[in-house]
This record gives sequence, C-alpha cells and structure tokens, in this order.
Amino acid sequence: MYTLMRTHNCGTLCKEHLQQTVTLMGWVHRRRDHGGVIFIDLRDRFGLTQVVFRPECDPHMHQLAGSLRQEFVIAIQGMVIARDAQMINTKLVTGEIEVEAHHLTILSKAKTPPFSICDEALNVNEELRLKYRYLDIRRGEIAKNLVMRHKAMLAARNFLNSRGFLEVTTPILAKSTPEGARDYLVPSRVTPGSFYALPQSPQLFKQLLMIAGMDRYFQIAPCFRDEDLRADRQPEFHQIDIELSFSNQETFLPLIEELVVSVFKETIGQELFPPFRRMPYKEALETYGTDKPDLRFGMPLQRLDSLVQRSEFAVFQQALKDKGCIKGICVKAAEQLSRKQIENYTDLVGRFGAPGLAWMRMTPEGLSSNITKFFDPSLLTEIATTMQAESGDLVFFVAASEEIVNQSLDHLRRQLAKDLNLIGPGYEFVWITEFPLLLWDDQMQRYECSPHPFTAPYHEDIPLIETDPLSVRSASYDLVCNGYEIGGGSCRIFERELQQRIFNLLKLSTEEMQHRFGFFLEALQYGTPPHMGLAFGLDRLVMLLAQTDNIRDVIAFPKTQRAADLMLEAPSDVTHEQLRELKIYVEQTPKGG
Amino acid sequence: MYTLMRTHNCGTLCKEHLQQTVTLMGWVHRRRDHGGVIFIDLRDRFGLTQVVFRPECDPHMHQLAGSLRQEFVIAIQGMVIARDAQMINTKLVTGEIEVEAHHLTILSKAKTPPFSICDEALNVNEELRLKYRYLDIRRGEIAKNLVMRHKAMLAARNFLNSRGFLEVTTPILAKSTPEGARDYLVPSRVTPGSFYALPQSPQLFKQLLMIAGMDRYFQIAPCFRDEDLRADRQPEFHQIDIELSFSNQETFLPLIEELVVSVFKETIGQELFPPFRRMPYKEALETYGTDKPDLRFGMPLQRLDSLVQRSEFAVFQQALKDKGCIKGICVKAAEQLSRKQIENYTDLVGRFGAPGLAWMRMTPEGLSSNITKFFDPSLLTEIATTMQAESGDLVFFVAASEEIVNQSLDHLRRQLAKDLNLIGPGYEFVWITEFPLLLWDDQMQRYECSPHPFTAPYHEDIPLIETDPLSVRSASYDLVCNGYEIGGGSCRIFERELQQRIFNLLKLSTEEMQHRFGFFLEALQYGTPPHMGLAFGLDRLVMLLAQTDNIRDVIAFPKTQRAADLMLEAPSDVTHEQLRELKIYVEQTPKGG
Repeated sequence: MYTLMRTHNCGTLCKEHLQQTVTLMGWVHRRRDHGGVIFIDLRDRFGLTQVVFRPECDPHMHQLAGSLRQEFVIAIQGMVIARDAQMINTKLVTGEIEVEAHHLTILSKAKTPPFSICDEALNVNEELRLKYRYLDIRRGEIAKNLVMRHKAMLAARNFLNSRGFLEVTTPILAKSTPEGARDYLVPSRVTPGSFYALPQSPQLFKQLLMIAGMDRYFQIAPCFRDEDLRADRQPEFHQIDIELSFSNQETFLPLIEELVVSVFKETIGQELFPPFRRMPYKEALETYGTDKPDLRFGMPLQRLDSLVQRSEFAVFQQALKDKGCIKGICVKAAEQLSRKQIENYTDLVGRFGAPGLAWMRMTPEGLSSNITKFFDPSLLTEIATTMQAESGDLVFFVAASEEIVNQSLDHLRRQLAKDLNLIGPGYEFVWITEFPLLLWDDQMQRYECSPHPFTAPYHEDIPLIETDPLSVRSASYDLVCNGYEIGGGSCRIFERELQQRIFNLLKLSTEEMQHRFGFFLEALQYGTPPHMGLAFGLDRLVMLLAQTDNIRDVIAFPKTQRAADLMLEAPSDVTHEQLRELKIYVEQTPKGG
Repeated sequence: MYTLMRTHNCGTLCKEHLQQTVTLMGWVHRRRDHGGVIFIDLRDRFGLTQVVFRPECDPHMHQLAGSLRQEFVIAIQGMVIARDAQMINTKLVTGEIEVEAHHLTILSKAKTPPFSICDEALNVNEELRLKYRYLDIRRGEIAKNLVMRHKAMLAARNFLNSRGFLEVTTPILAKSTPEGARDYLVPSRVTPGSFYALPQSPQLFKQLLMIAGMDRYFQIAPCFRDEDLRADRQPEFHQIDIELSFSNQETFLPLIEELVVSVFKETIGQELFPPFRRMPYKEALETYGTDKPDLRFGMPLQRLDSLVQRSEFAVFQQALKDKGCIKGICVKAAEQLSRKQIENYTDLVGRFGAPGLAWMRMTPEGLSSNITKFFDPSLLTEIATTMQAESGDLVFFVAASEEIVNQSLDHLRRQLAKDLNLIGPGYEFVWITEFPLLLWDDQMQRYECSPHPFTAPYHEDIPLIETDPLSVRSASYDLVCNGYEIGGGSCRIFERELQQRIFNLLKLSTEEMQHRFGFFLEALQYGTPPHMGLAFGLDRLVMLLAQTDNIRDVIAFPKTQRAADLMLEAPSDVTHEQLRELKIYVEQTPKGG
C-alpha cells in the first residue's frame, strides 16, 4: 500500500496530459456501467476524474472494478485519453479527458454511508451530518470552507508579520477572571480544590505582553465561553487577536483595514477599497437602529418626533408622553407589498415589543392610509418630504420607547431588504466609534463595561467618570461588515489609577478586584506603554468569506447548541478513578437527555 | 498620549539619520548624569538609543529628565547627532549616534522593579522571574526566544502551505481517550456529570480529517497532559502536527527534512544539509545505548561479550551468566581525566544501576589497569583493537543487564562529551526507524503501544502480531537532533480489522474500546485512505534553535513543575456559584502548599 505513489491528484489532468501514464488515488464517487464498460468518477479534495475500465484491457481488473462500491478508496494506473466530443464536461477542469485504467488496487473498502456523498442537492439532517462529520466534509462544501479558513489565517499571519507583529501563544490553562460570560473550569489535580479557567480571550495576556515591551503582538487564539449558545455561537471559537504599543487610532485603523484587504484578496480574490466609513455609535443607532448597520442598502430610519407631535394621532402622542420616540422608514417602490405582508411585518416588530406598525402609502395625491385623518395635509407633506417619499413608496412608523423603536425598525429594515431583494453584492464595511464606556445594568443595579473594563475613556470625558458616567465615551471601535460585527477593539487604560477608578465604578470590592485582577493592577505600575488593540472573530470572518449564516459550516468539528460534539459523543462519562484523582464529586441527579 | 507618534524604534537610528528630527518612545533603561548633562539609554524591543538632555536646551525639560527613574515609559523628540569618537559603541546598531532631546513626555511612571532589568549578568531566582514574567521578558533573553518562536511557527506554516497542506483547527473541548497520560477534564454545565477532556494531541482528529478526504493537514496545535512534570515538560505545549494521505515514507521523510531546513534557515539563518542519516532503533541502542543519540560527537559503545568471555574477570563473567552484556567506550586522549573524575563517573553510572565502572588506560605498552591481570595479553590487544584505542586513550566498561549497560553508558558518553568539550557546533539530525510496535508493561502485565495504538506495523511483520508481538516492528520514525527527540510519526493503521487486532492485544475490553474509540472504529469503515503523519514538539524545536535547556525560556507565560502560573496565581479558588452551576463538589481536605 505504501509503495505505490500517485502522480497527480484528481483535479489536475487535462488535455496537456494526453497519452501520459498516471497513477491516481481517491474515492469512488459514482459508478456507471455502460455496455460492459465501467465508468468511475474518482474523487479527492482537488476534484473528480473519470476513469474507464474496459474488459478487453484486463478482464480480471474489469471484474474487480465491478465490485467497486461508493466510497471505496482505490488506486488506479492508466493512460490519459481524450473524451469523445459529446462526453466533454466543461464544468470540470478534467472534463476533456478520462483515464483508461490498466491497473486497479482497492486500498480500502467502505460500508454504505448513512447519506449520499455524491448527491450535492441532498438536504441531510444536520445532526446526522455532525455525527458523521468526516463524511459530510467529503461532500465538498465544508471542505471548501476549511480551505478558505486556512487561507484567511495564513494571509492574516503573513500580513501581520510583514508589519512587525509577533505571534505569541498565551496560556489556555489560565485563571478565572469572568469577563461577562461564564468560564469553563479545569480542576487541578496537583492543587485539589483549585481550578484553572479556559480564557474567554487573551485580553490580559496581550496587555501584559505590551507591559513586557513586546511592542506588536498577534495571535490566532482559541477562546472559550460557557454560554447558552445562540445559533451563531460556539463554546470554543477563534480570535485574530492584535495589540500594539505606542500607536494611535489614526495609524491603527488604516493598518487593520489593510489587514482586511489582504485577507479578502488572498482568500477569495475580492478587492476592497479602504478607507472604510466611520460612524459614531449614536449616529448608527439613530439612523439604523443598531450599532451593526448593514450598509449594503439604504432605508435609513428618520426621527419624526417634532413633526408627529403636531398630529392628533393618540398612539404617537402617547409614545412621546412616555418619553419614547417615533421613527419612520421609507420603502421605495413598495407597490408589491400586500396587506398580508404588512401584517407579517406588524408581527415582526411586535416580537421586539412594538405596540403596532403604522404605515402610509405615497400616492400622486400624497400620503394616504387610515390614519392620515389625524394629520394635517401640510403635516403629511412635511412628513413625506422628510421621509423622501415618492409616489409608490410606503412609509412605516413605530412609536415606542427608543430601544423598542430602534430594535424593531432595525429588524424590519433588514427583513424588507431581504424580501425586496435590495441587498447589493459585495462587502460594506463601517467602523463604529465612540461607544459609551459604561452601560447601566438595571437588574444588578450597577454599571457594566462593554466589552471589558480595560477600555480607555475618551481623554476629554475622563472628568465625567464619577459625575456623569453614562455620558463617557470610550476610545473604542467596532468593525462592522454587512450587518455583522467582525472585530472590535479599543485603546486601553494604561494608568493604574484610572483603571482603579473604573473598577470602583463597577462596584468591585477591593478583595474581588485583588483576587481577579491583582496581578494585572500590580503589573500596570512598572512602566506601562500606551497600547491598543483589536480582535477579529475568525469564525465570523470566514462565515462572511464563505457566505454562510451557519457558524458550524466554517469549523471542522463544531459543537451543537447544547455544546455537544455528536461525532465524539463529548462531553462524556469519565472513570471514578479520574474524578478521585481530582478530588471532586459530581452531584447525583438523574441525567438530562 | 495617543496623538504623539514615534517616527523610529530604538534599534534603528544610525549615521544616515544625522540631523533628522525624530520621536522615540520606550523605557528608561539606564540613566547617567555627567556634569549637568543627563544621558538616558532608551529601550524598546528593537534596541537601545542614547538620549542626551542638556540644561541649555530647555531647563524645564532637563529638570523633568532629572526625575526619570528606571523603567519609566517616555516619549522624546530630538535631533540625531553623531557621538564623540571616543563614545562610539560598536556593539550597538545605534552606537554611532545619540539623540539630543528637545522635548520629553513621561507616558508612564514605574515603581522600582523587584529585579534589575538592565543588569544582564544578574542571576535572578526563577520563581521571581515567573511571578514578574512581564519584567523578565523586558530583560531581552526571553523576548529574543519569543521572536524565534514566532519565526519558526511562520516558517513552518508557509512551508507546509507551499506543499499543499491546510491548517485545520481541531477542538480543544474534546473527549477523554487517555493516550498514556492523564487527561485534563472540563466539567460540562449543560450535561452535569459529563466532562470534556483537553486533547493530549489531535491524533484522532487528524486521522478523521484524512478519512474526510482533506488529503494534507497541519496544525500548530495546543496539547495538554496532566503529568507530574519533568524539568523539560509543561502541562500545555504545542505540536507542529502533520498528516497526509496517499504518500509513503520515501516521499514523506524528505518533505519533513525540507520543512526542518526551511525553519532553521528562516529562524536562525542556519543551513542544514539533508538527507538526514537514518538509523534503525536496534542499531541506535546497540551503538549509543539510546534511541536519541547525540551524533555531534563519536564515542560509540562497543559490545565486548565474546571477547571478555575469554577473560578471568569474575564481574564480567557473572554479568554474562545473568544474561547481561558488557560494552565499552573509548575516550580519546584522556590523559587529563583524573582518578577523582573517574570516581565521579563511577557514581554517575551507579545512578543508572551499573554495579561498577571498569577502566583501562592505553599506554605505548598496551592496555593497563588493576584488572588487566585477569586478561591474556593477546586478549587485551584484541580489546584495544576493537575499541580502536590509541596510546593516551581511556576505555570504560560496564557489565550488567542490557538495559543498565545502555542507560549508564549513554549518560556517561554524554557527560564525557560535555566535560571534554567534544561537542561540535551545529545540528546533527538522525531519523530513528523500525521501533518495536509494542512494549511489555511488566507492572500491568500487558502490552503497550508506543507512542499510540494507531501506528501501523511493518507490513511483513503483521503475521507476527499474535505469535511474537514483541518482534513486530512499527512503520514509525523519530527525528532526533543533538540527542533530543524533536519529532515522531508513523504510518497509521487504516484497516478497521487490523486496528481491532491491535486493540485486542492491548486487552481493551469491547466496552472500553467502544466507549473510547467507538466513533473512530466506525469512521474507519467508510473508506479510509492510507495515511501517515508526524508531530514536532514546537517547544523542543525552539529550545534547540534558542540553545536553551529550559523549556520555560521559550514560552511566554510558562508554568512551574507544580503546574502553577506564578504570575496569574493559577490555578485558584473559584466561587461556590461557579461550582454549583457545574453540579460538582470538591472533597474537603486541608489544602496543600
């Protein structure tokens, strides 16, 4: 088995190889028998090659070929010949040739797979695909994404290396310093009762590397969060994690843009054209209802508070009284939207708490609907002008609290764009800047930092930290593409005293602060350079490149939303001996499914 | 702080920059005051630049410079000027210039560090260095190793990419399938009582990727073993992990040699000259007493059984009677070895169980010592000839069991080479081949696979699996350099039936086999290509490149031999809430130190 060598893979042979004797190895993708001649599509990761077994060439070989089943692994030797003109397959690199087999070796037989490998259209249940992940990868789509992921990682590494960044590997057996999500814990055997935690990100390590003087760091880092998973999350994921010293936003953001340009170019050949737009957080919320605006299409939200204040529409009036707001969205050439669809959209915004979805159609005579009677004609004209509504357009309104208005109109806007095919091709990037440094957690009755307490406030806002915390902007920046946040970063606090003020604001007790971050507060005192950084979600980035919405499509061996690996059957039982060595007990409860 | 930009780093300025105005940022490495003029060595990762503060330039700045202490982080603007001829430092790139400061900003003050950063010769206690790792890195040596590690990783990735290998990331939350070491476990919150395990290596994942048809895989993979650590081990470490299908040893080993050539060239500029030597396991043990021979020097072991059989030396006779052996080692020009040293060597071999260390000196009159009386003169001549002993040489003998003879003479040989400065420069590689597939574990009374049960036996030895297991050779290969194993790999079993036979031999119960490897045995049935692979110990490789014997010198944030991170203080306590969510209890025992 180990002496035969393939001369080519299954995706390369073409007319220039005619009359050459070749050795191919791969999987039996399809078999067809035509009047005593057996045709095999031989498959490997690189492509398909048609192989012909003729009885007159070698009856024994031909008979063996007759025993071939789907997914057998074989080696064949043979000669490259031209296909008959009518058999040419222009969709394949190898579509002009076939290999006439002289010799066949069966390397490995195969049981019938639980689902077809060769039927590309077949819609296989995802649980089955995950259990037999190795077979699903053979079907091609996942393999293609893994190639893309490989290329993206390598492009990022080479770009960052070319700019003087060093990849430094940081520990995975680290310390529990919860960053807003739950840690995965690892019991220590050597120090029973103590635990490591898997890192939610290398945040503190990379800042320590800056304190260590490493100047420019990166890492494609595994990160872990024990969260109840949403569809687009995994318990382990990867970040392209970057940090640098002695820089500033005006130098750093263009550098990151170049990185993105390089990754898109090297991975999918897509040209991008920086500089990317920038948009303050407030503007994004005001205009798109979200800090992750999809800019591949228009339909901005318009605030109508001052206009509709002059109407007699009780719903709008009430919303304003309740300190809410009214925003509208204008759908161009929306004649095709039926009442039924409008009802669906009403349901959609309802799911985000909107009490209703008002609408008006723009006709040659002006805005018209069953609520226009509450509006002066001149007011309607002003609304139409503000909304830039033209005849045939439809204007939707939501009146509620600011948060509900934004959330529901954001979702409505994106749904409309999908339904009306308004989404342009390509990639639209935008930097969202000037995030608020702090959020108020109503349930916990305290401030929270987003995303983490190491983000520097805007220099000019520092005096407001104690007096008006919620108005303090952070020196942070998220990179958003096509409505997805693909990266986020900030300038970091590099003064111990300022870091302490932030921790105080978070109501961390001195003890807790010491236990969780003592080593870091200590480190900050020995000469910390100004530093900043950013992390890309690698999985999210590859999803964009591969144009899939399923994070499991870009990971070789992903986990389900219940954090299970269906192929490995992990997590699993372990032996009593293993637990005894760790000195831990498991609570005895009936196991959940 | 974030508006000032450095124009150069501290390792670049030279005569070509004379008269340029520059901005530098970095750490105060040393300060010297000379007659009112203050000199600062400013440091960053790239080097040192001398900065001069003159009172006549700006008295306020000069006063501020007077407040600078070690490790303050500062930014300076100034002009590059030539140093006085007698002040030129030829050891520094920047040694011909200095920067006359016009402006000084203190970016960050620093407490006095717990050990000096600038005193290179200072021997700091390793525990203190680990606690303040970020300061230790600033001292330069570790930083240099981390740069080397970065370069080695990137060179490996680019080489493997150029040969069609894809980097595929495999799970870290995996399944407990102990591979001879203890697993680190991670309790599952979603499925209480179940555990993930951190992978000891991606072995099964990479084989599954071959079954998935990925053809050529690599990964720089984090691996975990919960072992009682030896000096050169870490609980987490990295492997350059490689697997490929449809290849064979004669193609694969040269490819790996090219990889090593590329890494050494790109990382330290060292040229290597493949092909590397190959040596069967048996020959390595016979000639060097070890399967990791250091070939930078000679001193092979010589078996003397048949010769000394003819002597009357009772010690040798007894060893032969006990089915042991006698081997000798000849030390060239060993006049300088004193009796005292020989006594030390006797102690050394004693530590490995040798009952004694016999020796003879070669004089112009032949071999001479207090035991030569037991040997015929002609026999002494034959021994001298076999040992290739020349006048002035010293021959050592150990007589004991084969294992003790090999171990003790291996260590003696290496110690002698160190003591006598026989170790040549550079790197001597050798492939060790034809390892035994199985070892007999006397304690457990069963066979064990080394390194893992997926290694293929030599094809021609397969019939011996049940009849004479210990004589079965494996299709495996270790790459040894300068006495260290830096990589190991093998052809893998790709037939389910053969894999089952090996598991049977290991006395795995059907249930255990199913629980641990069921998914893999299942996968083997769906068409498995012949495949093979190898893993390099990245840490070990970088140790060789950096020429250090301490694995902690090549890892940014290493752990101690008690698996503790002294900087983080990990592992650590976690909250009751965290354990409650995982439904686990810790056994209440007084904590160990």
